[in-house]
Amino acid sequence: MNKNITDVLGFRARGAHIGIKSKRRDLALIVSNVRASAAAVYTKNLVKAEPLKISMDNLKDGYAQAVIVTSGNANACTGSQGREGALAAVRELSMLTKIPKEDVIIASTGVIGEPYPTQTVVEGIRKNVPHLSRRRINGTMAANAIMTTDTFQKEAYISFKIGNKKVSIAGIAKGSGMIHPDMATMLCFIVSDIAIDTGMLQCALSECNEDSFNMISVDGDTSTNDMVMTMANGLAFNNRITEKADDYRKFRKYLMHICRYLAKSIVSDGEGATKFIQYKVVNSPDKEKARKIVRTIATSNLVQTALFGRDPNWGRVIAAVGRAGVELDPANVDVYIGSKKPIMVCESGVHTDFYRKQLKQMMRSNLINIVIDLNNGDRSATGWGTDMSYDYIRINAEYTT
Amino acid sequence: MNKNITDVLGFRARGAHIGIKSKRRDLALIVSNVRASAAAVYTKNLVKAEPLKISMDNLKDGYAQAVIVTSGNANACTGSQGREGALAAVRELSMLTKIPKEDVIIASTGVIGEPYPTQTVVEGIRKNVPHLSRRRINGTMAANAIMTTDTFQKEAYISFKIGNKKVSIAGIAKGSGMIHPDMATMLCFIVSDIAIDTGMLQCALSECNEDSFNMISVDGDTSTNDMVMTMANGLAFNNRITEKADDYRKFRKYLMHICRYLAKSIVSDGEGATKFIQYKVVNSPDKEKARKIVRTIATSNLVQTALFGRDPNWGRVIAAVGRAGVELDPANVDVYIGSKKPIMVCESGVHTDFYRKQLKQMMRSNLINIVIDLNNGDRSATGWGTDMSYDYIRINAEYTT
Repeated sequence: MNKNITDVLGFRARGAHIGIKSKRRDLALIVSNVRASAAAVYTKNLVKAEPLKISMDNLKDGYAQAVIVTSGNANACTGSQGREGALAAVRELSMLTKIPKEDVIIASTGVIGEPYPTQTVVEGIRKNVPHLSRRRINGTMAANAIMTTDTFQKEAYISFKIGNKKVSIAGIAKGSGMIHPDMATMLCFIVSDIAIDTGMLQCALSECNEDSFNMISVDGDTSTNDMVMTMANGLAFNNRITEKADDYRKFRKYLMHICRYLAKSIVSDGEGATKFIQYKVVNSPDKEKARKIVRTIATSNLVQTALFGRDPNWGRVIAAVGRAGVELDPANVDVYIGSKKPIMVCESGVHTDFYRKQLKQMMRSNLINIVIDLNNGDRSATGWGTDMSYDYIRINAEYTT
Repeated sequence: MNKNITDVLGFRARGAHIGIKSKRRDLALIVSNVRASAAAVYTKNLVKAEPLKISMDNLKDGYAQAVIVTSGNANACTGSQGREGALAAVRELSMLTKIPKEDVIIASTGVIGEPYPTQTVVEGIRKNVPHLSRRRINGTMAANAIMTTDTFQKEAYISFKIGNKKVSIAGIAKGSGMIHPDMATMLCFIVSDIAIDTGMLQCALSECNEDSFNMISVDGDTSTNDMVMTMANGLAFNNRITEKADDYRKFRKYLMHICRYLAKSIVSDGEGATKFIQYKVVNSPDKEKARKIVRTIATSNLVQTALFGRDPNWGRVIAAVGRAGVELDPANVDVYIGSKKPIMVCESGVHTDFYRKQLKQMMRSNLINIVIDLNNGDRSATGWGTDMSYDYIRINAEYTT
C-alpha cells in the first residue's frame, strides 16, 4: 500500500463514522506527538464558517498540534449555536489529548445553514481519540472521512533528504467536483516531519498554493469553508530551515509536488467529469496575466460543454481569452488544441487550415491539452480543469439541503 | 398580430433563408427611409468579430440608415477574408439602396473561426433587398432570421406621446441560452421614429442597457459579436430631444420597457431553462455593489443547478454573496427565497426556522424570486436568470464547429 500521513514521523490519524452523515465516515482526526509549526491559506469568501474562524484565531501564533474535520455539515451560517458546537469539539479533543485548545484546528464541510450536531461530534471525538494510531489504514480512513461528493479519497506522500536526514511530506485532500467554477469546500491537510520556522512554512505554503490549488479554483471564487493547512513537527531533525536558502527551496519543491498532485486529484474527481484538461498560457508578459487567462478558459461553461461534446470548438476558447480582463492584442494569439500533441488551430488570431478529421479524433481522448501562445513575453502558467457533463447537473441538482 | 419594427414610421424589414444555414432563415435586413440618429453598445471582448469592427467605424459619426444581420457564421477570427466579406455585403446593400456605405451597419452571429460565405451573403442581399417592406410579417421574419440556438423570435413594440405626437419604439433581439454565464452572441436592434439628437440617443441606450441587457449578462463576460444598436429616424416629428429634460426621461422610460422586455425574453429562452429567476438585491450602499451581487448569484452554476433540482439551497446563494467581491458584513444579510411570496430563510447571516415543507412546495414553481437584503443603504438592483438543466449541457455539447 502507498505511504500516507501516518508515515510521517510523529503523526497519528483516525477516520470514522460518528453519525453526522447517515452511513459514510464523517470524522477525521490528525494529531502530532509534539507541537508543530503550522500555516494555512483560507477561503477569501466573506461568509466564513464558524470552525474556520476558530482555526484562524488558533493559527495566528503559527503553531498547532491537532486537526478535527467533520463532514456532512458545513457549520456555516449557524451563528452562535455553530460557534459553540465547534468550540465544544475543540475542548473535548483538548481534554482527551492534553493538547492546549489553542493548538487544535477544526474544519467542516457539508451543507450550509443546518444546525451543527454538537453532541454527535463531541461523542464521536470521545469515542475515537483512543483509536488514533500510526497504522497506515488510519491515514486512509482519515482521507476518506473528509469526503462529501468526492468519489475517492485523495492522499499523497513524498520523501527526500535534507543534509543526511530523511524528511517526509504527506497530505490528504477533499475536492469538490463543483471546484469549477463554483467551489464547494476544498480542504487539504499536509503534514511533515521537517524542522522549519513557522514563517518559512507559511511562505512555502502560500507560494505552492498559488500554482496548485489556486490553478484549479478561481481566486476569490471560494466556498465558506475552504482551507489548506500544514503542520511541520520537526521530528526529522534536519537543520532547521530559518531562511529562503537551498533547503527552503528544496522543501518548497517537494511541497509543490504534493500540492499539485492533490490539486490534480481533486480535478480528476470533478463531478461528472469525463475528461481531464490541462490549460497552458505561454509567452505572457507576466505570470499573473497568464494565470488569469488560464482561469477564465478553465471556468468557461461553454468551453467545458464543448469538450464534453468532443467538439474542438476553439472559438469558445479564444472568446474566453478575449474576456479574461487581460490587455492583449488578439492578432498575436495562437491557439493549440489536442491530446498529446496539440494542433495549431488559430494563428495570429485567425483560424488555420488544420486537418479537422485528425483533431476530431484527438478530442475523443480523456486527456486534453489546450495551449494559448500570447507571443508577447516569456512567462507562463498552467492550470487544470474538467469538462462539464450531464452528471455535473445531476449531482448538483440532487445534492440537497 | 402584435405590432413590431415595421409599425415604426419609415422602417422596412426583411428576413429570409439564403443558404448560410442549411434550412433556417439566416439574413435579416432593416432599412430606414431616411438617415437616422444611431447609437450602440458593443461587446467588451477584446476579440471582436469583423462585422463589429466595421459597424463601430460606421457608427462613429452617430448616424445610420440600414442594418444587415447574418446568422450561422460569426465572422470572427476570420482575418482579412472575413473583413472583405463583410465589406462586400455592405457595398452590395449600399449599391442597391443608394444608402452611403458609412450608414450601413452589419452584424453576424454563429460559429467562430469559419470562413465567411461572402458570395452567399452578397447574392442573398441582392435577392432580398427588393422584398424589403412595411408588412408586419416581414418584421417578424427579420426577428426570426437572427436566431441561432433561440427557440422563438423576440420582438417588442411600444408607443406613447411626446407633446401631441405619437412616437413608437420597437425592437428585435436574439438571445443565446448560453447567456449565463458565458454569452453566445446577444444581438438587439431597436428602431424608433422619435426625433432625438444622436448624443442623447446614445445616453439613453447606455443607461437602459445597464439595467436590462447587462443584468442578464455579466459585464465584460461577452462574446465576440454582441451588439445592441438603435436608430431613431425622426419621422414622428416631435419636438427634437436635445437635452436631458422631461421628454428625454419619457423616451428613456419607454426605451427601458423595450430593453427589459427583450432582455427577459432572452432569459426565458435560456438553453434548457425550466425556471425563470428574478434576483433582487435591496438596501445596498450603492447600485453598482447591488448589481455585482446580482450578477454573481445569477451566474453561479451551483445556485442554478440547485434551482433546477427544486432545492431551496440558500447556502449556495449566501456563499455567492460572500464571494461577489463586494465589501459587506455577512452578519447584516437577510435572504428570501420563494415564488410569489419569498420566505426569509436567513436573517442576519444565520438560518431562520422557516417551514421547510412550504418552501419545498414553492420551489416547484417555474418563477422563482430570490431577494438579498443587505440592510446597509437604500439602493437596489434587479437581474434575471435561469436554472441550469441537463438540456443546457446537451445543447452546448452538441452545438458544433
